[in-house]
Amino acid sequence: MKTAGEVVHEFWRLMATNDFHSVVAVLAPDFVLEWPQSNERIRGAGRFAQMNAEYPAHGRWQFTLNRIVEGDNEVVTEVAITDGVQAATAISFFTVEKSKITRLVEYWPEPYSAPSGRAHLVEAISST
Amino acid sequence: MKTAGEVVHEFWRLMATNDFHSVVAVLAPDFVLEWPQSNERIRGAGRFAQMNAEYPAHGRWQFTLNRIVEGDNEVVTEVAITDGVQAATAISFFTVEKSKITRLVEYWPEPYSAPSGRAHLVEAISST
Repeated sequence: MKTAGEVVHEFWRLMATNDFHSVVAVLAPDFVLEWPQSNERIRGAGRFAQMNAEYPAHGRWQFTLNRIVEGDNEVVTEVAITDGVQAATAISFFTVEKSKITRLVEYWPEPYSAPSGRAHLVEAISST
Repeated sequence: MKTAGEVVHEFWRLMATNDFHSVVAVLAPDFVLEWPQSNERIRGAGRFAQMNAEYPAHGRWQFTLNRIVEGDNEVVTEVAITDGVQAATAISFFTVEKSKITRLVEYWPEPYSAPSGRAHLVEAISST
């Protein structure tokens, strides 16, 4: 039996092949994805693969795993995603049962301007 | 020694008191907060308390812990925050060392409209 963390590493490794149908190997048949920000749910590993395969891309998708926190059967990742033109950050909450991902709740935080009211307490993380 | 999860539960319990200076009890002296979306960093438990105390509010802040994933010394929470008028979701990556929070990297995902291109593959999570 793989650990939940091993299954999630394999998920991102398969995503990086850009053969999104291959990702089904680590998904449970009754896999469910939720995007709370857009109130969207995708049911089934097949629909998830199709959605990724159909998503408009300018080039090959690259995934950089910046952060992973592994609980017993829950894993959270922070991943930078780009196709060379579009760039996004995904925060993904995985539930893993019997070495398969049964559930994924995913957030897509966007950049925003720093509020001026707290400028006296903060510094820039980077100068870019 | 408290577990990392216990320390983070205590962090949110203290936040809920709205006495933000009390939260310093679970923060390391060299505590650092980062908000990658706005490229902001706050150094020090004192500045963190001051920032929260100064943040414009319409009423008492309420925090609802919807999700927690506990690793060995890293914990992730998803928390709904409201003052009765403003509402937001915070996804918080905590690093805990010796029962104190040394680092917090926090994301604030906002609602967005579901793209029409994948409507044939998705359903609404809720009808609201």
